[in-house]
Amino acid sequence: MTNSLPPSPCDLLVLADVIITQDDARTVISNGAVAVTGGLVDRIGPRPEMERAYAPADRLDLGGCMLMPGLVNGHTHLPMTLFRGFADDMPLMEWLEEHIWPVEFQLTEEMLGIGAALGCAELIRTGCTAFLNGYFHEQVTGDAASTAGLRAVLGEGFFSFPSPMFPTAQACWQTIRELHARYADNPLVTTAVTPHAAFTVNPEELAESFELACELDTPWQIHLAESPAETAVCVEKYGRRPLDILHERGLLTRRTVLHHGVDLDAREIAIVARTGARVVHNPVSNLKLCSGIAPVQAMLDAGVTVGLGTDGAASNNQLNMFRDLSYAALLGKLRHGNAAAMSAQSVLDMATRGSAACLGQPGLGRIEAGHPADMIALDLSGPNMQPAYNHVSLAVYSATGMEVCMTMVAGTILYLFGDFRTIDVKSLQAKALRASRWVVSQAGK
Amino acid sequence: MTNSLPPSPCDLLVLADVIITQDDARTVISNGAVAVTGGLVDRIGPRPEMERAYAPADRLDLGGCMLMPGLVNGHTHLPMTLFRGFADDMPLMEWLEEHIWPVEFQLTEEMLGIGAALGCAELIRTGCTAFLNGYFHEQVTGDAASTAGLRAVLGEGFFSFPSPMFPTAQACWQTIRELHARYADNPLVTTAVTPHAAFTVNPEELAESFELACELDTPWQIHLAESPAETAVCVEKYGRRPLDILHERGLLTRRTVLHHGVDLDAREIAIVARTGARVVHNPVSNLKLCSGIAPVQAMLDAGVTVGLGTDGAASNNQLNMFRDLSYAALLGKLRHGNAAAMSAQSVLDMATRGSAACLGQPGLGRIEAGHPADMIALDLSGPNMQPAYNHVSLAVYSATGMEVCMTMVAGTILYLFGDFRTIDVKSLQAKALRASRWVVSQAGK
Repeated sequence: MTNSLPPSPCDLLVLADVIITQDDARTVISNGAVAVTGGLVDRIGPRPEMERAYAPADRLDLGGCMLMPGLVNGHTHLPMTLFRGFADDMPLMEWLEEHIWPVEFQLTEEMLGIGAALGCAELIRTGCTAFLNGYFHEQVTGDAASTAGLRAVLGEGFFSFPSPMFPTAQACWQTIRELHARYADNPLVTTAVTPHAAFTVNPEELAESFELACELDTPWQIHLAESPAETAVCVEKYGRRPLDILHERGLLTRRTVLHHGVDLDAREIAIVARTGARVVHNPVSNLKLCSGIAPVQAMLDAGVTVGLGTDGAASNNQLNMFRDLSYAALLGKLRHGNAAAMSAQSVLDMATRGSAACLGQPGLGRIEAGHPADMIALDLSGPNMQPAYNHVSLAVYSATGMEVCMTMVAGTILYLFGDFRTIDVKSLQAKALRASRWVVSQAGK
Repeated sequence: MTNSLPPSPCDLLVLADVIITQDDARTVISNGAVAVTGGLVDRIGPRPEMERAYAPADRLDLGGCMLMPGLVNGHTHLPMTLFRGFADDMPLMEWLEEHIWPVEFQLTEEMLGIGAALGCAELIRTGCTAFLNGYFHEQVTGDAASTAGLRAVLGEGFFSFPSPMFPTAQACWQTIRELHARYADNPLVTTAVTPHAAFTVNPEELAESFELACELDTPWQIHLAESPAETAVCVEKYGRRPLDILHERGLLTRRTVLHHGVDLDAREIAIVARTGARVVHNPVSNLKLCSGIAPVQAMLDAGVTVGLGTDGAASNNQLNMFRDLSYAALLGKLRHGNAAAMSAQSVLDMATRGSAACLGQPGLGRIEAGHPADMIALDLSGPNMQPAYNHVSLAVYSATGMEVCMTMVAGTILYLFGDFRTIDVKSLQAKALRASRWVVSQAGK
């Protein structure tokens, strides 16, 4: 008899009113529990049964809460959190050339670190447990994530023309190798090879950098088809649409992550599906910069793996995955002229399992035995979370992100009911104020 | 010398790090204070000067917070909060006919009251201080708002065909007169005449009901041009587009409030501007029901007064004006193909002064001497509210609504740092659970 077995030890038993597992069957458990040991989920099940089965070293009773997998941010530029609200309501090129770039190229590692730490605090506060980054001086973001306890995939970006960071693309690749070595033993931080875009990196260097990704066995990520304007530039420069530039070099594979994909047509979506390349959808940023709405339901119908991202706080202006969840679901209906398109479940899949695949870490994005214990809890007691007919709908359409009351990565609690356990938010606030004054002073030069 | 004058008495002195006034000059005050007496703002100014000028009976020091006018919700159906998340991801007619209507017509006043109270709690929590409603049994919403301390404009809805509520439109008008009398001495609750739509109320009864609005001196509100499908129905039924049906009867005036206006063309926008009729934009609901995006920047350019609304929680699924603020700004850029369209300031204007005009209460939506003390405060200490380059941008693009830490109507504090002062949220949660079970049981019949 099972009942006669002595209870098993575990590090932590987490109890909650509802658990959205995001397992293969998309099981939702009422009054459930998750046993965690060694940073992994040991087992998940109904509370009474789990209470009998385990003698936990610690307990976390989240009565009145809903437990779900930590959300995975498929695309962001964390240090740019420093530019949140610095310049809004203007076209992309004016925004970049007149506001962002003049300051960006002056950024010190100290300033980047403040931006990255502020970004980590917001990710933790709003229930994100892992993110795919792209920026410069990526060890700053790697160290910030490592200190904060978040999983990060670092993307040191490069162009085929000299930048303030690198005289050549090859110089960046050396940095990528160093980053890869630096975090080789870090359980939370990995790397990705990150050419900026098909119009800023030439086809030869795209292909060479892809070989580096294969050698290091990392994702290879690129901004692609972000807007019709980008397509026009590629057609003028290379006589080809951006996806074709990659495709004819064999750069569309399961390690390829295409950020945005707003301007992909039906033929291109079929190619993406056939090759197994992934797409990350960034609905809020694509609106703010007036790029358009990616045809995501068509991608899903074609079998493309799609993740969800916030992009940087400079073009969002949040790093709140719950907000992008609702935008993805609501914009998808408009884009496809069908109120049934982009259901709540389908966008939650994107923000969990879809993004996890984009990070090259398909074990994330679900609560399941043997998988990492990356979990968040949402407080269901606020008026906006009632009534509760369908908890997936609540997470996608009714939550603001601020209902998150617990964030855990690899079994470690990073945030619990207002308490940040890995970040000194008070001192960070003072640093952010100082950094913002520095940004304004640089912009005025 | 001013300094030698003895300090004046006032009921309350509210102090904050930043005050967005929304006065005519859109003044933003750093380190400011607002003196409140008799439910009205007595004066607003810099903190040191105000500290010298007043000897307040009470003080509310909101250091680290930003004070702004309470947001005004231009369109909602408060009791439908009961249907939040009850049926998502389906076309309008399937949603109405198979899910909402079968239960809606069974609703008891007790159930409506629970929905309305839950809606009031969410409005208060997310910084809304006044709303324009439309539903049935409107005294339920009036009493809920009055108890909660919110300003409400009640819209008892009617059709030209028999409904479970009224055998005829005329029967509803009698109820409107009774509502008007019931709340005649209530400082918070007023009424509006509310024909449902141009395809459900015939032109003669539209005109007759407009006379009632003139007689009672109330707004006259109607769902109009919500979608191309509505236009098609009107054209088939009357040979006219919905706006023309109203226009040729002279029903477009400054007391006319048109909800949605998604399918208004340039000619119609010019007519709306010329007549002074108002439009309420409901960006989230228009996406969820796949209606489209209203051409709001074109309306503003033409001089139309535009308010902002959430619509009901059944098609949103929140009553969070901060969320609709960001959708209005971001969708406007896509709709007009211009990242500079629908600036943060312009959408904040809609959610404050614009909606206030729609409610027929243009004194709301600003913090200014002599105007009602309807104010909210946002906590600026969260990571998503930093850095602070521009506080209007923070309110529109970075806030989730959950930063609201104080909500005040007519000088009375309804919510302060987690404490609901007029609503027993614990007991309401139990009632909402019971009501949701009742809804499910009715739907199963």
